[in-house]
Amino acid sequence: MGPLASAQFMLRLTLLTPATRDQDHLPAVLWSDPRVPDRTAARLAGGEDPLPWLARGILGLEAAGCGAIAIPCNTAHGWYEGMATATNLPVLHIVDAAAEELARQGIPNGRIGVMGTAGTLAMRLYQERLEGRGYACIVPDEAEMASLVSPGIALVKANRVAEAYPPLAEAARNLRARGAAAVVLGCTEIPLGIQAGPHAEIGLPLIDTIDALALAALRWSGHLPA
Amino acid sequence: MGPLASAQFMLRLTLLTPATRDQDHLPAVLWSDPRVPDRTAARLAGGEDPLPWLARGILGLEAAGCGAIAIPCNTAHGWYEGMATATNLPVLHIVDAAAEELARQGIPNGRIGVMGTAGTLAMRLYQERLEGRGYACIVPDEAEMASLVSPGIALVKANRVAEAYPPLAEAARNLRARGAAAVVLGCTEIPLGIQAGPHAEIGLPLIDTIDALALAALRWSGHLPA
Repeated sequence: MGPLASAQFMLRLTLLTPATRDQDHLPAVLWSDPRVPDRTAARLAGGEDPLPWLARGILGLEAAGCGAIAIPCNTAHGWYEGMATATNLPVLHIVDAAAEELARQGIPNGRIGVMGTAGTLAMRLYQERLEGRGYACIVPDEAEMASLVSPGIALVKANRVAEAYPPLAEAARNLRARGAAAVVLGCTEIPLGIQAGPHAEIGLPLIDTIDALALAALRWSGHLPA
Repeated sequence: MGPLASAQFMLRLTLLTPATRDQDHLPAVLWSDPRVPDRTAARLAGGEDPLPWLARGILGLEAAGCGAIAIPCNTAHGWYEGMATATNLPVLHIVDAAAEELARQGIPNGRIGVMGTAGTLAMRLYQERLEGRGYACIVPDEAEMASLVSPGIALVKANRVAEAYPPLAEAARNLRARGAAAVVLGCTEIPLGIQAGPHAEIGLPLIDTIDALALAALRWSGHLPA
């Protein structure tokens, strides 16, 4: 899907592994298919259904001998049930991975800001799973989505990573001003844009869903303790 | 093989693509199998033959529907003939990609420094192909390999990228002092270590074989002009 986010997932999966030589690392196959129809357009604007493309990737990974599936695209999790029923392999859920990361960072409950694509927020992927765990979610409003978050995501997809920082950081700061104790970067393009600037200045914990999913994969594989 | 180099290849393949949205990018499958037996140990110390593992990866990529194979590991090219005969797909050659990058950077001939694993240098992968194109190759001596290049590569494989810079940069500076007009970073771990420090200070063109191979792949796919 977002190929830069997919590549970054592989990089972080590697760097987060305790390893002293090649053979200590996790074998992995990345199926990077940027032709998958736009997930937000499919959900909000009657665009082409991505599920057949997603299922094809999952079957390709299964044929390659993989033991579990991780999908470093948040919006694609709107088709989680369809993907999970397409395979007998476990499919890690990126929202559960983000929730585990919130807990690991010492934030067991409270008000959480969620940034994501318009599709992810409209499908309430984070709201439902995080509220089930005792968090309250706040999200950017429609004007912030149109002027800050969606343009920031599109800039990363166009390889214009540094330009994505200012709008994405402004959206995160706005969520902090509304009382968020942390902000989940719930679209895997967002951490790439956020890391391209002085993100420590935003002044609250930012949950990188690429790292969260990589850590979940390494717990699954036994490279990190469960 | 080196999983950090493989991930970096995917990142650079993406960033080097002229694209304004996901669907402009190249579909790609990465078969990252760090269990492949050490290539240098196989060639120099009677270690396990990596070719069956390499061929398995190639057949996996063929089954996934790929149209060409790129292998972001220089030492693995010691088994190039075996890999090329295992498939009907074109297999891009990383040394040819490096030579094209030398030409593109305005270095059509002359003395070229080559850094790589002990296996790559002993197999003369660069020396034979570059000398056939009119270059003269110089390489680190045995003491420099043992104290600078091999430890630098091992540090990258252990995720200790920043620590890899000083020894790798020193080896490159030594090649410059011996008259190299450019240095080919002929092991895909080396650019990762070199980029972790102030590499412009080394003071001569450094050919990144990850980028060179990614550019060759994008020329193959038509995303860049041939």
